[in-house]
Amino acid sequence: MKVLAISGSLRAASINSALLRTAARLAPPEVEVTLCSVVGDLPLFNPDLESHPPSSVERLRAEVKAADALLIASPEYAHGVTGTIKNTLDWLVSFESFVNKPVAVLNTSPRAHHADSALRETLRTMSAVIVESASVSIPLLGTNITESGMAELPSIAQAIRDSLAALHSAVMWQPSEHGPAFPVDPR
Amino acid sequence: MKVLAISGSLRAASINSALLRTAARLAPPEVEVTLCSVVGDLPLFNPDLESHPPSSVERLRAEVKAADALLIASPEYAHGVTGTIKNTLDWLVSFESFVNKPVAVLNTSPRAHHADSALRETLRTMSAVIVESASVSIPLLGTNITESGMAELPSIAQAIRDSLAALHSAVMWQPSEHGPAFPVDPR
Repeated sequence: MKVLAISGSLRAASINSALLRTAARLAPPEVEVTLCSVVGDLPLFNPDLESHPPSSVERLRAEVKAADALLIASPEYAHGVTGTIKNTLDWLVSFESFVNKPVAVLNTSPRAHHADSALRETLRTMSAVIVESASVSIPLLGTNITESGMAELPSIAQAIRDSLAALHSAVMWQPSEHGPAFPVDPR
Repeated sequence: MKVLAISGSLRAASINSALLRTAARLAPPEVEVTLCSVVGDLPLFNPDLESHPPSSVERLRAEVKAADALLIASPEYAHGVTGTIKNTLDWLVSFESFVNKPVAVLNTSPRAHHADSALRETLRTMSAVIVESASVSIPLLGTNITESGMAELPSIAQAIRDSLAALHSAVMWQPSEHGPAFPVDPR
């Protein structure tokens, strides 16, 4: 299973990006997690460019199309989603490969419910399949934990492994890419 | 009074941008409305660049600082704010001239309550003063109305004039830039 990991922060020391890199390290052999590197290269969304999208947008769409599932981790800025994650999604709104795509949403700051709710509302509106069993809160904000620290701390490492396992089983259970438009969540 | 108008859409034919340009045309002599032209030039927000912000960000901040009030009109994309408007605000989160700034939020699509609510929540979190008497719904989405059409249609022209008048009186009533942190709304 190919998982495209998307961070909503461009900060080099972003705890959300670090979490996604840790997920790539901890992934079992049957799951390949790749961090989306094009997010920071995307132009601001402009509907006028939809017919001839810039190359960075083409790359984003190709990566999304090739992925069996998405793993999103994004911070909250001023009680809202980051402009960066919303801009990424804005370029995917009219992209048909996004429909029915299984998505897990990781939240590194459980207190930050505004951005998490808004992100989920947008994903549902875009007809993604939010895999609830894989969408977990992993409180990391303010901990200054390193990437190695996450991989070595049993509670965090296990939460990441459980999320990937749940995402994997949701993808395996999904009948086909033209399957049901309602959330597939085999619990 | 100087009003900086910010559109959350980069589309050339954006109804939100057209509404703001119409506001600039209809503004009374004591109110000068200028459309912020830098929104589409901003890079995606990156906290690492905060200490040496790019020139477009410096321009945005200078325009915000020089303005007595802001007038925002932004569409809803996939039940959320546009990445473009949130990215603009993300660059202003730590900018002290934004605090206590009177802001009117125009909504061209009254059915689109998700983006309107999220935008207001973020503005409140950033300690802007939302001027409710100037924040009106002007249903335009799907009407295909032109800029001249807006200026000539009495109901729309009056709604715009009323909004600017309310914004003007809110700014006049505001005691000082170090005034109260609660909304000033002289109704």
